[in-house]
Amino acid sequence: MPAYKAPLRDIRFVMNELLESETLYQGLPGYEEASQDLMDAIVDEGARFAENVLAPLNQSGDEEGCSWTEAGVTTPRGFPEAYRQFVDNGWPALAADTEYGGQGLPNLLGIVVNEMAGTANWSWLMYPGLSHGAIKTIEEHGDSEQKQTYLTRLIEGSWTGTMCLTEAHCGSDLGLLRSKAEPRADGSYAISGTKIFISAGDHDMAENIVHIVLARLPDAPPGTKGISLFIVPKFKVNADGSLGERNAVHCASIEKKMGIKASATCVLNFDGATGYLIGPPNRGLNCMFTFMNTARIGTAVQGLAHGELSFQGALAYARDRLAMRSLTGPKNPDGPADPIIVHPDVRRMLLTQKAFVEGSRAFLYYLAQQGDVIDAGSPEQAKAADDLLAFLTPIAKAFVTETGYETANLGLQVFGGHGFIKEWGMEQIVRDARIAMLYEGTTGIQALDLIGRKVLGSGGKLLAGFTDIVGAFCEEHADAADAEFISVLEAYKDEWLQLSLKIGEKAMQNPDEAGAASVDYLMYSGYVTLAYFWARMAVLARQKIAAAEGDTSFYQAKLMTARFYFDRLLPRTLSHKQALMSGADNLMQMPAALFDVG
Amino acid sequence: MPAYKAPLRDIRFVMNELLESETLYQGLPGYEEASQDLMDAIVDEGARFAENVLAPLNQSGDEEGCSWTEAGVTTPRGFPEAYRQFVDNGWPALAADTEYGGQGLPNLLGIVVNEMAGTANWSWLMYPGLSHGAIKTIEEHGDSEQKQTYLTRLIEGSWTGTMCLTEAHCGSDLGLLRSKAEPRADGSYAISGTKIFISAGDHDMAENIVHIVLARLPDAPPGTKGISLFIVPKFKVNADGSLGERNAVHCASIEKKMGIKASATCVLNFDGATGYLIGPPNRGLNCMFTFMNTARIGTAVQGLAHGELSFQGALAYARDRLAMRSLTGPKNPDGPADPIIVHPDVRRMLLTQKAFVEGSRAFLYYLAQQGDVIDAGSPEQAKAADDLLAFLTPIAKAFVTETGYETANLGLQVFGGHGFIKEWGMEQIVRDARIAMLYEGTTGIQALDLIGRKVLGSGGKLLAGFTDIVGAFCEEHADAADAEFISVLEAYKDEWLQLSLKIGEKAMQNPDEAGAASVDYLMYSGYVTLAYFWARMAVLARQKIAAAEGDTSFYQAKLMTARFYFDRLLPRTLSHKQALMSGADNLMQMPAALFDVG
Repeated sequence: MPAYKAPLRDIRFVMNELLESETLYQGLPGYEEASQDLMDAIVDEGARFAENVLAPLNQSGDEEGCSWTEAGVTTPRGFPEAYRQFVDNGWPALAADTEYGGQGLPNLLGIVVNEMAGTANWSWLMYPGLSHGAIKTIEEHGDSEQKQTYLTRLIEGSWTGTMCLTEAHCGSDLGLLRSKAEPRADGSYAISGTKIFISAGDHDMAENIVHIVLARLPDAPPGTKGISLFIVPKFKVNADGSLGERNAVHCASIEKKMGIKASATCVLNFDGATGYLIGPPNRGLNCMFTFMNTARIGTAVQGLAHGELSFQGALAYARDRLAMRSLTGPKNPDGPADPIIVHPDVRRMLLTQKAFVEGSRAFLYYLAQQGDVIDAGSPEQAKAADDLLAFLTPIAKAFVTETGYETANLGLQVFGGHGFIKEWGMEQIVRDARIAMLYEGTTGIQALDLIGRKVLGSGGKLLAGFTDIVGAFCEEHADAADAEFISVLEAYKDEWLQLSLKIGEKAMQNPDEAGAASVDYLMYSGYVTLAYFWARMAVLARQKIAAAEGDTSFYQAKLMTARFYFDRLLPRTLSHKQALMSGADNLMQMPAALFDVG
Repeated sequence: MPAYKAPLRDIRFVMNELLESETLYQGLPGYEEASQDLMDAIVDEGARFAENVLAPLNQSGDEEGCSWTEAGVTTPRGFPEAYRQFVDNGWPALAADTEYGGQGLPNLLGIVVNEMAGTANWSWLMYPGLSHGAIKTIEEHGDSEQKQTYLTRLIEGSWTGTMCLTEAHCGSDLGLLRSKAEPRADGSYAISGTKIFISAGDHDMAENIVHIVLARLPDAPPGTKGISLFIVPKFKVNADGSLGERNAVHCASIEKKMGIKASATCVLNFDGATGYLIGPPNRGLNCMFTFMNTARIGTAVQGLAHGELSFQGALAYARDRLAMRSLTGPKNPDGPADPIIVHPDVRRMLLTQKAFVEGSRAFLYYLAQQGDVIDAGSPEQAKAADDLLAFLTPIAKAFVTETGYETANLGLQVFGGHGFIKEWGMEQIVRDARIAMLYEGTTGIQALDLIGRKVLGSGGKLLAGFTDIVGAFCEEHADAADAEFISVLEAYKDEWLQLSLKIGEKAMQNPDEAGAASVDYLMYSGYVTLAYFWARMAVLARQKIAAAEGDTSFYQAKLMTARFYFDRLLPRTLSHKQALMSGADNLMQMPAALFDVG
């Protein structure tokens, strides 16, 4: 497994220089304390925790996996201890509500720390990570007693949370779910049903687990409009806050998976478990939508994380491994061969990794900042940020996890045959990364959300909100020095709007046209979005170089990577454009029975 | 694991209708017996073996893996029995030399049987599969005693073979290898060194193992021109052909791998093992080149095989799994939701799989036929086929395994979260498929072979040999009915020639330009090559439909899939073209130290 070293220079570049976080947070009430110094210090601390505590458990966690008995789930060696340290150091409280013990720091910091922790050990991060959904749900929809009872403990980290949505017959289509909630005389509910794919559904790392469960009330209308949310604690909680008797929710088994093997994926049986309604009845799905964007950005981080780790491994190997001579003459004449980083195609793979990783980092940190503006900005600012986040989230979730998987695979490829061998750790990264395109809504689901709900559903308004930002940036930097990026970006912005209009027109005639264009449209949008962030980084880098500010070599590398992105990755839009414009007929014509005649 | 059902209709379509094998083999001396009836009967038999004997061992083989003790390697339950049945039924002898017990049937049949066996269980196929290289080496370079001693047993299958090339410090760059061969007074050699990544290097399936080992003679020149080939049997062979004492070659360990876990990947220690020189001294690499093309096509089959299996699994799931309603109205109104095959994006994934799988089948069977022409055609025919094979082999190896991996991943994606769970078997296909882009020369190595050795190295002659065939086909079918395919294909053929010229010009100035263009050039070439085979299939399908010949629905599906390929997959050339034309600067400019400043 590659030794993880947090890319602090790049993290600071994005946080402080590109996104000017200090300036932003000075103007956001409640976040004024988030100075650059404070944020840098916290990031440094997070880097040490990720590098020293979490990274060493990544490969052993994969080998050991979790084990299950009727008594519950045991996590790999070292996992509970690492979690205790995490709690003792106050990490779960970082970006949480101060009223319930949180530190009230920006979400951005939470995302940065998650990136580092997740790069070091994604499986481990799943346990505290899943608490996020439970915390947000109770924060936004819980009554004050529920907040006092559950939120405080979730924020301090002594308890963790889960989100119990999926059932065996329904994942994306939650309208089909069957779990039941029967009201009891005392105001609680008896929850019955079986949930699957429950990450952190059981484990040995915290005293209690707070399940947020989707279920139907007896009189609920069918479909998505009859789903309610319930709190179901693993151990019931006494009036004084101490733990009471075991609730009737049990882990029936854990899944054997391709990757993230140290993360327990549980089947949970609810056998008349005691639950408490949270939020209004039958409005459970709407309640969940309020934080789905942030959850999806949390998953997008996985693409960045696995991409970064794979890049670090591949780069070290490419500098070290000797094979063949450079075609332009030996670069290591005293050695038996040249390091493979001299070969153009190895560089193509490394630069592809670098461009996706650094571009995604800028993209995701930017989105995390928008989350902070939603929380603390003026109503107008919050509305604008919310629109932006709504539009960009499906792009981030799908595009960053798809390119993250590609990046992980390229790192393995740089190792040649050794990449296939477990000991090097590169294949684990690929296996771990594969889930990110599936959970929290597959790439296909994100693409339908983007084209259907966000672009066409808003009559193009949400798209225009972002392309206006891109347009303003292009106008501001229309001078000759940046033309190599700006002129291209501007043309793409216009084409993006035109393509969206055309899909909209076709979809009016035939709704399948939207679905037929969806994934290619999302990928097109992703490449253009990343081009915007790469253009911003390139412009800034050129300014810094011109001003001879700081470590010029860092900015030169940025500029070169931006060029690589525009030359070699952005042109993938050409294929996506052609495919998405080809229409629905080539997909819909074939009768289902003809797919495998024979 | 999806139940494997050999796609016999499509296999017969390609063998008999598209490639008109019977007609071809009637005209190839020695292959006249290969009538359509005989070949169909053998394929049917092979299908039964693959479906009934090999497929049931695929998932259990992955779970059990191989185990190692000092005594040797134990393969998973059922593997040795299946191999015994394989030998008893005469399969190893199918396409082998009649003089040494082979049946002398076309290589094409061997490839078809390998496709079916490999789709059912690729790990298992690795054991007889590796014999192929040993058989070819001894056939072409062994003396008559070596042939009598080893070839007969390898062909009957009671012994298996290996190819021992790689050492820990060298894979692609064999010039660095260090294993030694010291001559002994009796004419044999003492072989010493450690080889890694030796597939089927030890196992419990056959009586003896014949290692073909690359090593250096004491006076050998350095680099690739000082490598010789040796036969090193696991058990020495007595004069009467019976097994003698154990030779000093031992399996020191087996690798833990991402996939093909039931295939033993061995570290082999040669401690003064007795070996016999095969072929002329210091010419080992040249000897190996003589059959490298066929070995690489054998690996290309892996992309087809994993693609097919993943497609079968995904298609069955997409017809069965219910989620959401078609946007154009319910298609399964009596059920709670529609089967997901109604959704455009699910169809996009399935059709991508179908187009790659069926296109690759046509491509690879065509290449196998060329191998038969080389073996049995007139000198002129053989030369033309050899040139064609030399040119198309790197494309087949890299393109079919890359798209095979994509296809395997798409099948997993169709399953949503369930795809990540071992029990369904879809993730195993992805893990198993990943190695194909690495061994027998990585994608990068194939791409250098294509652009460097084949295209530029022949002054464009090998490329022109194939584009002439494409051009002749286009001319022959220039009528209006087929224009949707032919006009596009013809334009691509011209562009392909132009792009190749441009790369050649640039590479004259700077050799790194060839490497910088290489993988994008290979992928471009792959898409155009597949377009040729899809155009051929489309033209034939349209003829059959017009003649109302046979099961029209099969031909209609072909025509629709061809359209899908031209509409949605072939445009990927646009991105590859742009990237490959962008030149070497964007790859070579960045100093190695700047890849990770920070």
